[in-house]
Amino acid sequence: MKFPIWFRSITKRNFVMSSSTIKKPTVQQPQWHKPQDKTEGKSILKIYNSLTRTKNEFIPIKPGHITWYCCGPTVYDHSHMGHARNYVSTDINRRILQDYFGYNVKFVQNVTDIDDKIIIAARQQYLFEQKIINQYKEINPQLLQVSKEYLSTYISKNLPQFTSENIESEFLTWTNSIPNVSEISKENPKFPMYLKAAKVAYEAIYNSSSSLSIEDFLEKIQDVAKPHLDKEFGSTVTDPSIFRKLPYFWENKFNIDMGRLNVLPPSVTTRVSEYIPEIIAFVDKIIQNGFAYQTSDGSVYFDTVKFENDPNHDYAKLQPWNKGDLSLINDGEGSLTVGDSKKSPSDFALWKASKPGEPSWSSKWGEGRPGWHIECSVMASDITGEVMDIHSGGIDLCFPHHDNELAQSEAYFDNKQWVNYFMHNGHLHIQGQKMSKSLKNFITIEEALNDYTSRQLRLVFALSPWDKPLDFKDSLISEVKSVESTFSKFFTTVRALNNDYKHKIAEGGFVSKKVSTVEKQLYDDLTKAQIEVDIAFNDNLSSGQAIRSIQELIGKSNSYIQQAAAGSHELRIEVILEVTSWIVKILNILGFEVRSDKLGWNDTSSSSGEDGGSVEDIALPYVKALSQFRDVVRNLAINKSESNTILQACDTIRSDLIKLNVSLDDRPNGIALVKFLNAQEKEDLIQQQEAKIKAAEEKERKKKEQAAANAKKEAERLEKMKINPADMFKDKSLYSEWDESGLPTKDINGEEISKSMTKKLTKQHQQQQKLYQEYLKLTAQ
Amino acid sequence: MKFPIWFRSITKRNFVMSSSTIKKPTVQQPQWHKPQDKTEGKSILKIYNSLTRTKNEFIPIKPGHITWYCCGPTVYDHSHMGHARNYVSTDINRRILQDYFGYNVKFVQNVTDIDDKIIIAARQQYLFEQKIINQYKEINPQLLQVSKEYLSTYISKNLPQFTSENIESEFLTWTNSIPNVSEISKENPKFPMYLKAAKVAYEAIYNSSSSLSIEDFLEKIQDVAKPHLDKEFGSTVTDPSIFRKLPYFWENKFNIDMGRLNVLPPSVTTRVSEYIPEIIAFVDKIIQNGFAYQTSDGSVYFDTVKFENDPNHDYAKLQPWNKGDLSLINDGEGSLTVGDSKKSPSDFALWKASKPGEPSWSSKWGEGRPGWHIECSVMASDITGEVMDIHSGGIDLCFPHHDNELAQSEAYFDNKQWVNYFMHNGHLHIQGQKMSKSLKNFITIEEALNDYTSRQLRLVFALSPWDKPLDFKDSLISEVKSVESTFSKFFTTVRALNNDYKHKIAEGGFVSKKVSTVEKQLYDDLTKAQIEVDIAFNDNLSSGQAIRSIQELIGKSNSYIQQAAAGSHELRIEVILEVTSWIVKILNILGFEVRSDKLGWNDTSSSSGEDGGSVEDIALPYVKALSQFRDVVRNLAINKSESNTILQACDTIRSDLIKLNVSLDDRPNGIALVKFLNAQEKEDLIQQQEAKIKAAEEKERKKKEQAAANAKKEAERLEKMKINPADMFKDKSLYSEWDESGLPTKDINGEEISKSMTKKLTKQHQQQQKLYQEYLKLTAQ
Repeated sequence: MKFPIWFRSITKRNFVMSSSTIKKPTVQQPQWHKPQDKTEGKSILKIYNSLTRTKNEFIPIKPGHITWYCCGPTVYDHSHMGHARNYVSTDINRRILQDYFGYNVKFVQNVTDIDDKIIIAARQQYLFEQKIINQYKEINPQLLQVSKEYLSTYISKNLPQFTSENIESEFLTWTNSIPNVSEISKENPKFPMYLKAAKVAYEAIYNSSSSLSIEDFLEKIQDVAKPHLDKEFGSTVTDPSIFRKLPYFWENKFNIDMGRLNVLPPSVTTRVSEYIPEIIAFVDKIIQNGFAYQTSDGSVYFDTVKFENDPNHDYAKLQPWNKGDLSLINDGEGSLTVGDSKKSPSDFALWKASKPGEPSWSSKWGEGRPGWHIECSVMASDITGEVMDIHSGGIDLCFPHHDNELAQSEAYFDNKQWVNYFMHNGHLHIQGQKMSKSLKNFITIEEALNDYTSRQLRLVFALSPWDKPLDFKDSLISEVKSVESTFSKFFTTVRALNNDYKHKIAEGGFVSKKVSTVEKQLYDDLTKAQIEVDIAFNDNLSSGQAIRSIQELIGKSNSYIQQAAAGSHELRIEVILEVTSWIVKILNILGFEVRSDKLGWNDTSSSSGEDGGSVEDIALPYVKALSQFRDVVRNLAINKSESNTILQACDTIRSDLIKLNVSLDDRPNGIALVKFLNAQEKEDLIQQQEAKIKAAEEKERKKKEQAAANAKKEAERLEKMKINPADMFKDKSLYSEWDESGLPTKDINGEEISKSMTKKLTKQHQQQQKLYQEYLKLTAQ
Repeated sequence: MKFPIWFRSITKRNFVMSSSTIKKPTVQQPQWHKPQDKTEGKSILKIYNSLTRTKNEFIPIKPGHITWYCCGPTVYDHSHMGHARNYVSTDINRRILQDYFGYNVKFVQNVTDIDDKIIIAARQQYLFEQKIINQYKEINPQLLQVSKEYLSTYISKNLPQFTSENIESEFLTWTNSIPNVSEISKENPKFPMYLKAAKVAYEAIYNSSSSLSIEDFLEKIQDVAKPHLDKEFGSTVTDPSIFRKLPYFWENKFNIDMGRLNVLPPSVTTRVSEYIPEIIAFVDKIIQNGFAYQTSDGSVYFDTVKFENDPNHDYAKLQPWNKGDLSLINDGEGSLTVGDSKKSPSDFALWKASKPGEPSWSSKWGEGRPGWHIECSVMASDITGEVMDIHSGGIDLCFPHHDNELAQSEAYFDNKQWVNYFMHNGHLHIQGQKMSKSLKNFITIEEALNDYTSRQLRLVFALSPWDKPLDFKDSLISEVKSVESTFSKFFTTVRALNNDYKHKIAEGGFVSKKVSTVEKQLYDDLTKAQIEVDIAFNDNLSSGQAIRSIQELIGKSNSYIQQAAAGSHELRIEVILEVTSWIVKILNILGFEVRSDKLGWNDTSSSSGEDGGSVEDIALPYVKALSQFRDVVRNLAINKSESNTILQACDTIRSDLIKLNVSLDDRPNGIALVKFLNAQEKEDLIQQQEAKIKAAEEKERKKKEQAAANAKKEAERLEKMKINPADMFKDKSLYSEWDESGLPTKDINGEEISKSMTKKLTKQHQQQQKLYQEYLKLTAQ
């Protein structure tokens, strides 16, 4: 045994060492080779920015952190699918940035609780309650009289196309004869809505008032009554609480809807009504900076001309081509704004003088309230400072709302860029059409959640690019349901296989873990999907592309599982679990609720929740099933029943278990695979079963029919058997002479029976001879 | 009203626009200012690399992906706190890389199920069962005799300090008088263990053998008996299943322990026993590459001298100062290795020729098994290829194990660097001392989980730097409990405040959301903590530092809450929820189980869990029981078994269900009453069942005894039957004269037999006559 040089040189010193952890600074470690940095080739995060109308590399102000202001709801009615689209898509984007890219996101969202639409809705609701609901407890002539007035006013204001004086006799005929509804609607999109409201009120007042309850009657006339009441009494409404109550109610409703859609709550919520002092100060600073002016009525306007002409500023950065579009500008100003004192038609209100019947706060410019656009500038700036990373909202808010926000804030801070990335969610269409009250395709979130689960809705939005229009149409729904089913079925199978594996282990069985080419391929497929998902998320947060990559991975996993089931290789659970837990991780990032064991998404559509109830409550139905099955088997055994009956009992329990979301798949080895089913799989299995039962019934029916036919045939045969062959040709209307065996020799006309006929008759005679012999034998027994 | 120039210039064109989404390519958007990239200043991830003994910037081979091989357990005994430290610390590191930094981690871990320690443990256990447990059902002189021999051998081999011949009279006195135990232990750390084993056996054999049950006695002598038995019979153990059963048992136990510690399962598990062909091929390639050689006994050794002298390679990259440390080298070779034919003392076995009593596989070098180090090289390379990102393991594995792995793999691939980052977990000490069996401070994970919750243990490891020694001492435990309590109290408070808020909203109350300076400060504190945690994780995955930052944030949040309670400001729930959900997110990343509402960690110390898992998890055992019962019944029915067998199956499922806390009480109507049992009832029922079984056994025993008695009686009767009545009184010491039938007439003294005696004798004679007739009849047949 030779000792190498290096061995001898250090052994002496080292032999006394007992611990391997003591440092030996005199002996140097060999060189370490720093790995090559390949991050250059890695995709970088790009986001579609409305400020450039291209995808820009995302560079946050502070590395690792994002400040984000999202335009929240104006709360005066149910939130609808348009809101769902905006807020769920935004939620998905936020979650990807937060949970995939690891940013700490400070997400600010406002509640617009001061707004002309809210003022009108609150005032009308209040007046209708005070002047009508509280006054009329029955449909009396007085109520009918005022209702007719309301309808008349409504028609003359909103349906000038009806020119007759006599509403009662001619209105209905007219409504049924308008040839060009769609033509008129193009000019005036609200026309169908006005028409409908007037028709409903007309029906109630002139046709069915006697058959309606007071509540139904008031319900039907409210749309025509409210504007009238508001015009008449609106200015008398002064109690500020009236204008607080309604938005607060709808704000809470909105939060409930968002909760049901699993939208993360904002980091900070800002309400306009809680920001009045800051708004006044902000407006004042803009005036000081020279970009706003007060008018004689006590309003303050933004000076778009001054701002636009300032070399340091740009107006309408998002949609400069819409500058001066009065229809958009006036729509943005609100229906209660007068604005006739402003310098330029494109100027917009920062502070509105309040008229009687409008909520107001004291300011140096007199009693008034904030304009729409200013709120967001003030609240966002209060939380995110003079520049934020992301501002988001619906595409319809680009101009004038967001462009005005930018102008206000850049005028206030006197800076170049208040928002670095402006993200706008695409429009939502329903079956190809814009959603609107007038088109009657206005779906509230509550209604949508009756037809679809929260998961299905999120899947709709996750599959669609957030910045593109989305058409909520049947084909998309089918696609979503198919994707959902693919995922769910996969998860169910994985859990069944995992349970099977755990059970084997618990019973002391040996399970190999050795990976071979097929598993290595699946691990590679997983890596490929991970790379694809990374590319997808980096490319403008493309959740749809990510889901499609995952679907492909599920397809490959299913093939692997199926091939194992077919015996082409043994199944290795580890690779399946690795694939599944990654898929579940990504789904969780996209905001889908997942199981605590990470082996699928939460398959509970009911609100009662998965973990409701004690172990006993949960286990009881299964234990009951077990006990009942045992009872049946035991009693059959006690009565020494046939094996067949027991097998039937085994089939029955299998059917019964489906109702408990359990499927037992019998396998050739005699050990059933236990599967927990989700709602869809359960439904499918029950349908399969019913189809099977139907088929069996049909078979049974046919069998019975056949048996009946056979019986009939047999009866006929029996009847025929009884005939003595000697008597079978005794028909005197056919024949006139016979031989001794009873065969006819002459026909009725006395003519000889032809040879061929005689041959035929002889054959028949012989056949009957046989039958008759049989008959005699049967009766002899 | 004046129109600005730009307004006039575009209005005409734009007034006809109805939609804001139509593109106006002719109107350009103003310039967008690309944000300044400040990522330069952001900290980069550095990991302490044993290959450089410094923190190196982490650069993965493939951006976004990590391949990782972790040295798994050698499975032949309970896993202990040293394992917990290694695997939980590694789990925390893995989770930070995966869930904080977003890497896709392919985590490979081996199971060493072929190893000298395993061979010895399996053989000894088998021999002790065969030769002792199965042979001795009571403490008899023979057992005492062999036990004395075992003890004597054990003492003379392991405690040479005891020099007397007379163990019985002097050993105990000697053990109590050793003055320098700690002195001896320093030289020989196993001394206390040997001493203890010998004392325990001595007590059992010489002092208390009469008072011990056979089970207790065998338990106490096993440590001295096993080595003796192994030496004597070891080479006769040849059944390969003996060497498979033991590691498989402990592998499953290990997995259960890891599950209880919430350690993520590996992506891929590799077992040595499933890699023999690959190992053989790998070794062969190393020989071909010139870095290994076969010896005459059929072993293969790695040529460390050749490798060291190769200009392209370095040997012992991790701890070059330990090169040639024979104590470490030989320890690594295993106690069953001879190795006297190797060229250099620092060479190590790649393939060991197996001696009788050792498991073996065929190879071109003869029957043998893999060396310890080669397995990891082969299995890791099979999954991760010729270079991996991270290799991890305990610090005690550095040399020779990991250094040899590196040498083997780099010799195989002929490459420079098989592992880019080598991460070694620091040693675990218990109360300042190295944990060892000999120091009696060896704590199994099972034991630890009786004293601490899984969460507390994880907190111990998360608070300590993974690469530094960790002393599991009282002060650390107190610190951990205090940290835990701080977190738990905070979460409880937050949930209470949130419930209060939700309740207020549900009742229609108004809650302000306006943030003021105090909330803004807390949001800033959150940002600060987020930055600190980011720095901590980047700096060698310092989970302890991260937790301390979070603690500070909790302190600030508590002040905020307290000040609100004291009335100095109103409480805003949003900021509290924002802080909490971030904290919970980080805790979740560190592997602490968290609530589904993200408002705290799971407050369940028991393994059963608060929300006890999903419906599926809870129902599964019952459903499995049902399914299995159905399988049994179905198979019995298919095989047309007897009713009786089926009834037995019904009894078996009833017994089995008791273990699942369910009792089925059979009733006369054939419908069993289903009862869920509490722990006491279950215990009672199990005892009842056992008593029933015992009673049945007792009955069986008595029946057998009775049968034996009957058989004996019958045998005696048969014996008696054979006597010819003529011969029955032929005793010449009693009688002197007889009549012709053989009845005595005179006694030995010649006196007439009394009348009464004659009567008696005649009766006996007649009885025997009958018996004898019967006998003749029986024999005649």
